[in-house]
Amino acid sequence: MNKGHEKDEWDSGVPRPSEALPGLDQEQLRVLRQVGRQWHRVAPRSATEHRALPVNPDTGVFPPAADIHPTRFGQLVRVSSLGGGVSEQRADGADEAGRSPVGRFAHRSRRVLLGAPLKSTAVVRESMRKLVALPVLSADALSSVAYGPEAMLAVLVLAGSTGLAYSLPIAATIALLMLVVGVSYRQTIRAYPHGGGSYIVAGDNLGLMPGLMAAGGLLIDYVLTVAVSIASGIAAITSAIPSLAPATVPLGLIMIALLLVGNLRGIRQAGVLFAAPTYAFILAMFALIIGNLADSAGSGFRPTPAPHPTATEGIGVLLIMRAFASGSTAMTGIEAISNAVPAFRPVRWRNARTTLTWMISLLVAMFGGIIAIVHLRGVIPRGSETVLSQLAHLTFHSGPMYVFVQAATAAVLLLAANTAYNDFPRVLFLLARDGHAPHIFLRQGDRLAFSNGIALLSVAASLVFVVFAGNTDSLIPLYAVGVFLAFSLSQTGMVVHWRRVRTRHWRKSLTFNATGALLSTLVLITAAITKFTSGAWVALMAIGLFFLLATRIRHHYQKADAALRLHPDATETRDRAGARAPAPAPTATPHPVQPEGGWPDHETGQGEEEKEETPQAVHHLAVVALASLDLAGLRALAYAASLRQPTLAVHISPSEEEAQRFRGYWTTWGDHVPLHVVLSPYRAIVAPLIHYIEALHRQRPSLTITVILPEIVTQHLRHRLLHSKDAARLRRALRPLPKIVVTSVPFHIS
Amino acid sequence: MNKGHEKDEWDSGVPRPSEALPGLDQEQLRVLRQVGRQWHRVAPRSATEHRALPVNPDTGVFPPAADIHPTRFGQLVRVSSLGGGVSEQRADGADEAGRSPVGRFAHRSRRVLLGAPLKSTAVVRESMRKLVALPVLSADALSSVAYGPEAMLAVLVLAGSTGLAYSLPIAATIALLMLVVGVSYRQTIRAYPHGGGSYIVAGDNLGLMPGLMAAGGLLIDYVLTVAVSIASGIAAITSAIPSLAPATVPLGLIMIALLLVGNLRGIRQAGVLFAAPTYAFILAMFALIIGNLADSAGSGFRPTPAPHPTATEGIGVLLIMRAFASGSTAMTGIEAISNAVPAFRPVRWRNARTTLTWMISLLVAMFGGIIAIVHLRGVIPRGSETVLSQLAHLTFHSGPMYVFVQAATAAVLLLAANTAYNDFPRVLFLLARDGHAPHIFLRQGDRLAFSNGIALLSVAASLVFVVFAGNTDSLIPLYAVGVFLAFSLSQTGMVVHWRRVRTRHWRKSLTFNATGALLSTLVLITAAITKFTSGAWVALMAIGLFFLLATRIRHHYQKADAALRLHPDATETRDRAGARAPAPAPTATPHPVQPEGGWPDHETGQGEEEKEETPQAVHHLAVVALASLDLAGLRALAYAASLRQPTLAVHISPSEEEAQRFRGYWTTWGDHVPLHVVLSPYRAIVAPLIHYIEALHRQRPSLTITVILPEIVTQHLRHRLLHSKDAARLRRALRPLPKIVVTSVPFHIS
Repeated sequence: MNKGHEKDEWDSGVPRPSEALPGLDQEQLRVLRQVGRQWHRVAPRSATEHRALPVNPDTGVFPPAADIHPTRFGQLVRVSSLGGGVSEQRADGADEAGRSPVGRFAHRSRRVLLGAPLKSTAVVRESMRKLVALPVLSADALSSVAYGPEAMLAVLVLAGSTGLAYSLPIAATIALLMLVVGVSYRQTIRAYPHGGGSYIVAGDNLGLMPGLMAAGGLLIDYVLTVAVSIASGIAAITSAIPSLAPATVPLGLIMIALLLVGNLRGIRQAGVLFAAPTYAFILAMFALIIGNLADSAGSGFRPTPAPHPTATEGIGVLLIMRAFASGSTAMTGIEAISNAVPAFRPVRWRNARTTLTWMISLLVAMFGGIIAIVHLRGVIPRGSETVLSQLAHLTFHSGPMYVFVQAATAAVLLLAANTAYNDFPRVLFLLARDGHAPHIFLRQGDRLAFSNGIALLSVAASLVFVVFAGNTDSLIPLYAVGVFLAFSLSQTGMVVHWRRVRTRHWRKSLTFNATGALLSTLVLITAAITKFTSGAWVALMAIGLFFLLATRIRHHYQKADAALRLHPDATETRDRAGARAPAPAPTATPHPVQPEGGWPDHETGQGEEEKEETPQAVHHLAVVALASLDLAGLRALAYAASLRQPTLAVHISPSEEEAQRFRGYWTTWGDHVPLHVVLSPYRAIVAPLIHYIEALHRQRPSLTITVILPEIVTQHLRHRLLHSKDAARLRRALRPLPKIVVTSVPFHIS
Repeated sequence: MNKGHEKDEWDSGVPRPSEALPGLDQEQLRVLRQVGRQWHRVAPRSATEHRALPVNPDTGVFPPAADIHPTRFGQLVRVSSLGGGVSEQRADGADEAGRSPVGRFAHRSRRVLLGAPLKSTAVVRESMRKLVALPVLSADALSSVAYGPEAMLAVLVLAGSTGLAYSLPIAATIALLMLVVGVSYRQTIRAYPHGGGSYIVAGDNLGLMPGLMAAGGLLIDYVLTVAVSIASGIAAITSAIPSLAPATVPLGLIMIALLLVGNLRGIRQAGVLFAAPTYAFILAMFALIIGNLADSAGSGFRPTPAPHPTATEGIGVLLIMRAFASGSTAMTGIEAISNAVPAFRPVRWRNARTTLTWMISLLVAMFGGIIAIVHLRGVIPRGSETVLSQLAHLTFHSGPMYVFVQAATAAVLLLAANTAYNDFPRVLFLLARDGHAPHIFLRQGDRLAFSNGIALLSVAASLVFVVFAGNTDSLIPLYAVGVFLAFSLSQTGMVVHWRRVRTRHWRKSLTFNATGALLSTLVLITAAITKFTSGAWVALMAIGLFFLLATRIRHHYQKADAALRLHPDATETRDRAGARAPAPAPTATPHPVQPEGGWPDHETGQGEEEKEETPQAVHHLAVVALASLDLAGLRALAYAASLRQPTLAVHISPSEEEAQRFRGYWTTWGDHVPLHVVLSPYRAIVAPLIHYIEALHRQRPSLTITVILPEIVTQHLRHRLLHSKDAARLRRALRPLPKIVVTSVPFHIS
């Protein structure tokens, strides 16, 4: 909690784009200053001299605006610089692909689909009124009643009429659970007014591992929210139009594609568009419940007997527990409000709490009402038609009200899927910020959306949807595990939190949270055990895999950060080395063939470390790899020689005869640069050159060897096949070698 | 013919590995000398100074052999240099992929499959005795009787018994054609003692276009030789073992794979292994013919009536012509001996002619004999069993002789396919040498095989085999066109040749060649017309496509050669520029911020041309692209500054806030290098940087801008995903810009 402030700002849900560029801490700044002094001490003159540039770096003023005319660079226009206004056209200007016709087409399609880019400053804090926040944030939770009761009944019906009799007590338990968890989350809202997602609460209070477990549960949960909501939404549609049933999978993929594009555009979580479906759904559900109750009132609330389902399993504790776990999926999405406290108007936490109370009340009422009328009307789950659709048919037949119920259900479910699109990339962003996920998830696209996370969610959800053929029943067993894992960890975290902070009413809050944590954990265990073979193992495995992966990623980033970090050791080594072998004043011998003090005798150790932070610590050797003495080769040689560092030319020759010929050319040219010919009797080019350069490196590990490669660049991609790819292959092969700098001198053929 | 000498040496079939490295002509040498003088004139001191290197380029002597111990480079060992013995281990040493476990596995598999690499000097001229040359070179031609007669009969049988009656006269015509073409090729052997392939003869005498047409015909021909021979060989096997018939396609692909591996190993065209199948086949055919004749003698050579085939088409000129064109496929491979004259023992051309005569005699005898016994025994083509197999069954029943006939047939057909594997890459090599095919076909693999050509043939043949389901009948219509196109052009070329050279007996030779050319052309036209719809159009289209492609490739290479060529214009421009604006003596101002004579006023024109052949013509600006001031960034800065050229650092910042922070770090460090921050409000990194560098370039086009990129290199490929790929993306995006040199300064995280 000591780094609470920084976190708080972040958790507020307004990610800064500069997060991908981490800052330096005090120690690193000290080292930086120290390194800088070393630069200054030895090369003051050259440093000043270098300040004079042959160009004006502020390109915004040169050439004058009137001078701008289309160059061969086509659509690329003026670059304005820091402080100046940045024209939309410029920074928009098609990424590197933008020049080829394919690239231009891709760019245009992108703009049509996704819209013009948005500036970072376009990130605004949303402040929602409670009446707007309620529908936006509770779509996920409320829409769960579309599949939760049905999932429960689908298990109970296995035991026939005997099983169905248990639906009322199980539903009552679930409703109680909803209340407990709701009250528990009210405590979280108070404690984390900047937003308390499960990952943050669990990580803050329980430590890294539980935090990661919660994050894994959440990510799985979001993927399944998309899959289940869309499966359920399509079921609402196919119940109304049965002829669409065979197209379930393509329809689902189309919906995911729509969500993908919409979210890449950067759909904001607000406005009437998002409030309407939820209110319509609430209206539809209450109409449904009241209508059915009214019909039932005619028969004196005597339950219509269910159509004698054949029992395939005996009733037992396991079956009841399974039904309970399935029904608990009606609770998914309860946590949404506690994550989004900053989105409320002030006093934020108080408004959020009120909204949560409303939501829980609605949820319990709708869940209870549906179970009640299901019981009264004797409806049982059927593969081809959802329970809600059956109930709607009973009361509204196929009239406009029936269509309204189905349409509202489908719409709210799509909206619930969209909620996952908002939260999944944000959890990944938080994970990436802490080094548990690849840094690409830190990046916001030019529409301010976390494009990579959105894309990943779409791919994962599509995969799940296709594998389970868009069948809600098959998806439910996977669903509960992730949700309740996150619930349990988050609420356990709150228990620890209250014990630690002991603010006002902490005992009461602790009790509520502890109850919530206990019950959630019980559901989690129930779900994991009873549903293990029918799908929970997939979710558990996925969470385990995520945990493993996140740990490995974290490990690598820590190693990388340690390697990249400015640390005092490096400078001190340099200081000592400097004292022993003072670097030459560059003005005295402008092209030092050898440092005046001789080569550092510990050069192997120092040299391999790639820690030359000062120019005088860099000892150069330029190696020009030449295949032939054509213009491209000569240019590379001229470039190398113009650097005024020791230069060596290397030619790989397939035969003694060719080697002689090349030496002849070299003599004709004037032998201005030492030439070494390596014979490659097996005609390979890359391997011998790599070996040769490696041998040079081993000879004097303190040298920085710049390998200069002439590279022919063709205008058209299709011509690239016609030229040797040796330069690219060499570059790739030289990558792993330490202290080898690769320079490509291009030669353009248009 | 004036470049005859060089060609002759090449056509001898011993390609030099240095062909991929073209030489310089007199004009280019003159230019080279001139450029060299300019280097000398201005920078004599620095040139001498630079000769002192911090390393010994002859790495073979350093470190002493005893000092070698395994480094982190693992299997890479000592590099010996020009003149020294090259240890097998070294130049063999796994290409760049060899370090990763996958790479090592690939490398080992390669060695097991393909064997140890071979030195270029291992190319030896084969000198074959006639009795060895005959089977090796005539496998293709002789094996054609396995499918030629059957293809003819398959057409005639469509007209029922009436059609079959025409088999004898058509066969007689084909036999005559064989004799004429044989005699015609005897002339080619005399005129082209170094080997006269159709591409060379047609190209030499008729010009570029006919040469390319011939080459296209040949390439198609070789692909079809593989497909038809293997299809026919498998038919021989499935005739004997009908249960294998459903596996035709996989069997064929396995055979192509075997040929691929065998030829990548570099199978030599000699030895008993290759002589045996052909002799066995000749033996088998004569046994078959004699056996059947003997059986037939019992019935007084009275033809057994064919089993009343039902006529589906009426007999007509078109059908007879189609039968003739199909039967002509028995002639494929006749040209092999004339291509391979240098492979004979001296007097080469005389021995080759004798062998050709033998081959033609055998071919005519076998072809005639088979047609005769087919007629006598009343055999007609059946889908499930080849004609040869039916004939063998009739005489030898299912005894060991039957097995021998079938085995010999399959073996010789596989050998015929192997012939194509020798010739296809060679034709591609010749095409690539002349710039009509990508230069990759010039390369010999480490087993001295033209690996790329071999791979291309395998892919093409597999494709054709799969598309036509390994059905000989469907492949035959494609076959004749390519063969006879090459025949016609080659022999027409010879007619022109004789008219030009008028050596002894030229009139007689001209007459023979003219007859051959005429008849071949007639067959070509017949085949193209009668078989157009049944497949010839595919072959014709492929030839046309090849022609188009080859022309485009040639065009590009010519442009590239012209661009790369050392030409006097460039130097003269430089001379004049030098006179106007003498370059500064590098010792006076070691770090010229501006040339003493000022920037050339025509710099746009000169600068964009990338023709700096002298160091003093290169004006530097180093631009370091920095994301953050970590060790990798500082190293890149130190590297840039150590080059002692004007240096500018550029930072792309997503927000004003981050820009300020970065400027703060810069000041802390000491501001040793001018810094320019580009604001990227849409968070893109690559595009703004490209635009900025492009703006710098436009400001002063004569500058060579070196973009220095710090690049994090991870040890494991899987970690690469975790780091920004911006460096690689920048490199790709900067490629098309003129005069931008890209330098990657690696920072290794292990």
